[in-house]
Amino acid sequence: MHGIDENRIVRLLRTHFGARNPSLIKGIGDDAAVLHPRGASEYLVITTDMLLEDVDFRRSWLTPAQLGHKSLAVNLSDLAAMGAIPRFFTVALALPRDVNIHWIEGFYRGMCALAKRHGAILIGGDLSRSPSGIQAVITAIGETSDRRPVYRSGGRPGDFLYVTGVLGRAAAGLSLLWHGRIHGRNAAERKALQSHRVPEPRCEVGSWLARSRFVRCMMDLSDGLSMDLPRLCAASGTGAEIWGEKLPVYSPARRWQCDPVTLALHGGEDFELLFAVSARRAASFEKAYPADYPSISRIGRLRREHGVVWSSARATPLQPLIPAGFDHFRS
Amino acid sequence: MHGIDENRIVRLLRTHFGARNPSLIKGIGDDAAVLHPRGASEYLVITTDMLLEDVDFRRSWLTPAQLGHKSLAVNLSDLAAMGAIPRFFTVALALPRDVNIHWIEGFYRGMCALAKRHGAILIGGDLSRSPSGIQAVITAIGETSDRRPVYRSGGRPGDFLYVTGVLGRAAAGLSLLWHGRIHGRNAAERKALQSHRVPEPRCEVGSWLARSRFVRCMMDLSDGLSMDLPRLCAASGTGAEIWGEKLPVYSPARRWQCDPVTLALHGGEDFELLFAVSARRAASFEKAYPADYPSISRIGRLRREHGVVWSSARATPLQPLIPAGFDHFRS
Repeated sequence: MHGIDENRIVRLLRTHFGARNPSLIKGIGDDAAVLHPRGASEYLVITTDMLLEDVDFRRSWLTPAQLGHKSLAVNLSDLAAMGAIPRFFTVALALPRDVNIHWIEGFYRGMCALAKRHGAILIGGDLSRSPSGIQAVITAIGETSDRRPVYRSGGRPGDFLYVTGVLGRAAAGLSLLWHGRIHGRNAAERKALQSHRVPEPRCEVGSWLARSRFVRCMMDLSDGLSMDLPRLCAASGTGAEIWGEKLPVYSPARRWQCDPVTLALHGGEDFELLFAVSARRAASFEKAYPADYPSISRIGRLRREHGVVWSSARATPLQPLIPAGFDHFRS
Repeated sequence: MHGIDENRIVRLLRTHFGARNPSLIKGIGDDAAVLHPRGASEYLVITTDMLLEDVDFRRSWLTPAQLGHKSLAVNLSDLAAMGAIPRFFTVALALPRDVNIHWIEGFYRGMCALAKRHGAILIGGDLSRSPSGIQAVITAIGETSDRRPVYRSGGRPGDFLYVTGVLGRAAAGLSLLWHGRIHGRNAAERKALQSHRVPEPRCEVGSWLARSRFVRCMMDLSDGLSMDLPRLCAASGTGAEIWGEKLPVYSPARRWQCDPVTLALHGGEDFELLFAVSARRAASFEKAYPADYPSISRIGRLRREHGVVWSSARATPLQPLIPAGFDHFRS
């Protein structure tokens, strides 16, 4: 697959295979598509994501219930990034012969436990034998409140950039797994492993941010800041700068020889939200943001000059942020 | 996977993981799910199907464009079975390293050509590297006209059973492929190969049947009559009898040593519609059915006694029809 990346294929699809329809509000190229069925009071938001064994996970690293949770979580995170509330989902599951009924029940149990907490309902799907590994493809359908989805494209130069939660913690967990440490030896390791295995989609926060009207553009961080932020910038027609000292890094990762800043910049699968707020309204936004919600950090700003730059510490010069996140087609 | 079949897993999901919501009209267990977004003038119909290399197809048997067509066709056929008009779809595609950009373009070209003819629009999806074969998972969204989807469950004893088109022709094509005859040597072989490779979903017919109000229950034939009819019967709480001499078989298959009746009973992937009409209205229905639509055949009737039986010829005794269709979990 040398020379083919996901961005290129998305461009191909938008150019050659895009089409218009009065019910289609947003098609290919954002975190999810947006539809407006004739007469409906809300917009529908639709996203599809897949997890493949030995590409996205190893079977020995996750319980069936954890894999069920994660398969759905990556989709709910896309809905969160549009400000949508999860409603329904379908699951296509391909299973090798050595998977038994207990595995299948565990998978659905983990998936449906997460679904229940977010009010999403399993409405259908497909099952098949797989000649190789496990493949789970989920399509999730959400609804926006009062027709106000948030796109990647609304950012303007000068807007402040924010993220929810902690960046690089899931990658810190992945690093433990790569080294065979599938059981955490202490709370910090267990927390990192948990972030990797059972990420919590930020649906409640995403919906609040959309309804608050403070947020101009938003996406979720699935491939890492250095891969995802350029996508937000491309959609908004801006560049961006990131302030290294403001990144909400996962410091305990140092104990297992990981650099927390590198993980925060390039680590994937945090499923935190990245969004922009106009500088003028930033103070009101930070005041209005609910205290019992996941923490938010102001990590940089959008700028007119294209490209993404960052400074490793306060007052150090800005340097280009080279994308080094996880891209399926380059890995 | 010994001992696990798809019907059993569907029962598991309905029993343990089903849930209710005022917008959910029909969940797991039919050809597709049915939603009614608040305020919307139509129902939405949603289905997910996957095609896996070396389970559902061999790469050397199909061009990329044919695979793109077929991946979408199997989903549109599920919409047709509910009487829905296709509107939107998403595609999750996992591709091995030896697939290049020309292959990908061909796949989308074939898929979007079929989509265009049916008015469906590609709205999103996911792309991944695959460690083994090609996997294509599509979720299709359709709309019913005036909120009148047709389910599997509306049949009553005495109703006549009908199918569209010809049964067993796709299986006749598959049989040629199994014998290495990937190029047809004459029109009959080419027709059979085409049925297998680029099945034509019966969306227009399905929508007409739903709007006509003649049809009490309907499904599409994907796994073969002997596998699918018991599902229709189970949903309707009936049994059925099939009249062998009335089956619209593909007679030319005899030339390559296939029994046309066996193919019609057990061959999969015809993607024709199977439906029931009350005996009282059958004559009016047959008169009203548009002459320029695909042919229909009255092949039997629903009966009170459970189980599916058939007669091999007129006046021969009824015998149990043993399911021998294509079930992914048994193959």
